[in-house]
Amino acid sequence: MNRSSASLTARRDRLLGENTPLFYDDPVHIVRGEDVWLYDAEGKRYLDCYNNVPHVGHCHPRVVDAIHQQASTLNTHTRYLHEGILDYVERLTSTFDSSLSTAIMACTGSEANDIALRMAHSTTGRTGIIATDSTYHGNTAAVSQLSTKMPPIGGVENHVRHVPTPDSYRPLGGQFGEPFTARFIDELQQAITALNKSKHGFSALIICPYFANEGFPDLPDTFMKETADVVHSAGGIIIADEVQPGFGRLGTHMWGHERVGIIPDVVTLGKPMANGHPVGAVVTTSDIMKSFRSGYRYFNTFGGNPVSCAAAMAVLDILEEDQLLDNAAAVGRYAKTELIRLADRHDLIGDIRGQGLFFGAELVTDRTAKTPAPQEADQLVNLLRQEGILTGTLGVHRCTLKIRPPMTFTRAHTDLLIHTLDELLSRL
Amino acid sequence: MNRSSASLTARRDRLLGENTPLFYDDPVHIVRGEDVWLYDAEGKRYLDCYNNVPHVGHCHPRVVDAIHQQASTLNTHTRYLHEGILDYVERLTSTFDSSLSTAIMACTGSEANDIALRMAHSTTGRTGIIATDSTYHGNTAAVSQLSTKMPPIGGVENHVRHVPTPDSYRPLGGQFGEPFTARFIDELQQAITALNKSKHGFSALIICPYFANEGFPDLPDTFMKETADVVHSAGGIIIADEVQPGFGRLGTHMWGHERVGIIPDVVTLGKPMANGHPVGAVVTTSDIMKSFRSGYRYFNTFGGNPVSCAAAMAVLDILEEDQLLDNAAAVGRYAKTELIRLADRHDLIGDIRGQGLFFGAELVTDRTAKTPAPQEADQLVNLLRQEGILTGTLGVHRCTLKIRPPMTFTRAHTDLLIHTLDELLSRL
Repeated sequence: MNRSSASLTARRDRLLGENTPLFYDDPVHIVRGEDVWLYDAEGKRYLDCYNNVPHVGHCHPRVVDAIHQQASTLNTHTRYLHEGILDYVERLTSTFDSSLSTAIMACTGSEANDIALRMAHSTTGRTGIIATDSTYHGNTAAVSQLSTKMPPIGGVENHVRHVPTPDSYRPLGGQFGEPFTARFIDELQQAITALNKSKHGFSALIICPYFANEGFPDLPDTFMKETADVVHSAGGIIIADEVQPGFGRLGTHMWGHERVGIIPDVVTLGKPMANGHPVGAVVTTSDIMKSFRSGYRYFNTFGGNPVSCAAAMAVLDILEEDQLLDNAAAVGRYAKTELIRLADRHDLIGDIRGQGLFFGAELVTDRTAKTPAPQEADQLVNLLRQEGILTGTLGVHRCTLKIRPPMTFTRAHTDLLIHTLDELLSRL
Repeated sequence: MNRSSASLTARRDRLLGENTPLFYDDPVHIVRGEDVWLYDAEGKRYLDCYNNVPHVGHCHPRVVDAIHQQASTLNTHTRYLHEGILDYVERLTSTFDSSLSTAIMACTGSEANDIALRMAHSTTGRTGIIATDSTYHGNTAAVSQLSTKMPPIGGVENHVRHVPTPDSYRPLGGQFGEPFTARFIDELQQAITALNKSKHGFSALIICPYFANEGFPDLPDTFMKETADVVHSAGGIIIADEVQPGFGRLGTHMWGHERVGIIPDVVTLGKPMANGHPVGAVVTTSDIMKSFRSGYRYFNTFGGNPVSCAAAMAVLDILEEDQLLDNAAAVGRYAKTELIRLADRHDLIGDIRGQGLFFGAELVTDRTAKTPAPQEADQLVNLLRQEGILTGTLGVHRCTLKIRPPMTFTRAHTDLLIHTLDELLSRL
């Protein structure tokens, strides 16, 4: 760490508290961003292979202009009439199945999931929630109960039950295929039965339809359809957390749940929605919205303000006009082919997964035993940072390299990533 | 309601759901804002006596420029090093007692209060919370448990206890003065004892130091000091929700808790912090921050991003350079004097309270019996809207006219408000 970074880190500990999350052994002091590039204080540039928040590229001029124009004109709450939120929600819901026709706008994906849980309560009259055992859906007190990583003071409330994370590389039910789905559904059924025996009752399954934090396993085609059928048969609802796969990241579809062949009851949105402007939303059916609006008073001062809507609308415009879904599909296919070629030369690569502009490689120290290599993954991510490439790790064993760049990522950017990976994997 | 408003309202019901909060019997279709003025689609202008979010005035060019500049340069999360958040938190905490030296930045006041509750848990090891019975601290599932208005599905969790709202106009303990404080403290002691007998234990009292939603009662000088002593003696902490009184609104002090003579353990901030850009924060001691960072993993993707910090910093600059605290104090004094003169002519005015640019009048149908006049208050607010003045109501009986304009509100604006009030009160 150079002197400037050391001094900033010390100041940060003092002002923000120690243990405030920070990336890399040698933290990066970023001062400027443009498209897929970030620049540090010394002018060094970094290829951003990590950030999904700047969805259409860092500081996209059209989003910046939309924010500037609207912030100069009007920025207020939604207890006055304003076309901005109506035009945006109309455009947004037009990208979903026609049953998902209404929305509440909030400021973060966490707020969206916090609302979604209450929609499950109001529409089913029950409060039990099921999530996977290595998921993350956000940071409010209610939503963070869904994570198993660090139980809250007082313990996880017993209205939350966890099912094992689907893992296509080390499948629950032995071989990949039908037993895999059956085993997951068996676990889900057990959790539903347990909740129905409790005072809470079964209300909802909340999942990321891409199982992004879980390490984006390759699932059988009917996996989510069969899962959704079980949830609906039990009188529960499906909350699809689209914070990561949504807005076309997977290339083939606008939404992760379309890719896995289900229509959720509630969809939550966040991070990439307005390219970094704090915007989240919950999209649902008019019946569920009605039950929520009858069961709870809810108002969000900043949610759906004209500036947020203008920024979010610009993102949809750019996605469409620049055909960024097609780009994600094509570049993602190319990157996976290149990663497969890389795996021929580097035994550390155990599995390659993903789709569109959300892919990665699971690292193992032994391909036969599939021994997770979290230390090597961490080392690789730090070496990549030194070479000017920003990535991260995720997954059950924290040994999956996560590549999730802005949607404007190209083949040339992929070549730079692959070339650097090739060199660094030789050094490990 | 004209045809355009009716059509927007119908579209709104369809896209956002029925019962989505909307002001006034005849909703206002606002399209532009500037300083203390809002303009509707037909060009009619409204004097904004309600909105505290545009703290330094609607669309203040300096805040807009700060947002534009920074959004063009870099907008990313805080897991990289960046001076923006450090400079802002240093400047912000310098306005507090030196014990309040660290901060977490979030996107809304609700998120801030949601964090504050967990700080109470981590620092005391207990989870019981006390609030007043007519408060509002935000909209997350955890924070909305503090409101008594509409109990959540499954009921209010019994870790929350309510104490009666202090009401100087209809005091709990008979006459205003010492028995008033003693009676409140007695109720507080009872709630603490009850929590300590439960499995939760007493953790914190969360209050707005101005009791804004409660109707901003005139409290005895030592009221909050005596209250804070009881809380601290019982091993609990004070969470001061400064979303409404903070950032100088009361004129005499930057923070509401300074005005009432206490140093809280945790302070939460929201609405006016960045003039409408979605920003909130929690300010606390380094010990409490340490316990929180050890007890919980917390990361907020949008919280403290460079654009949010630039907008929030511009607000502090403007407050200071334009001496807006002095303005709030002077205009607030003038307005109260004028309201008192108005009370001579209108029997509907039962009580006049408030300070700085947060004041109002409680309306009653009978001054001796102090009979609340919520219908008349609602009617007055709707008449004011027709006359181009935006206000609202609040308080235990929903009969207090709430005047809480941007900090640039002047004597001339006050004259217009008072003159219009005078005319309308004659009509009621």
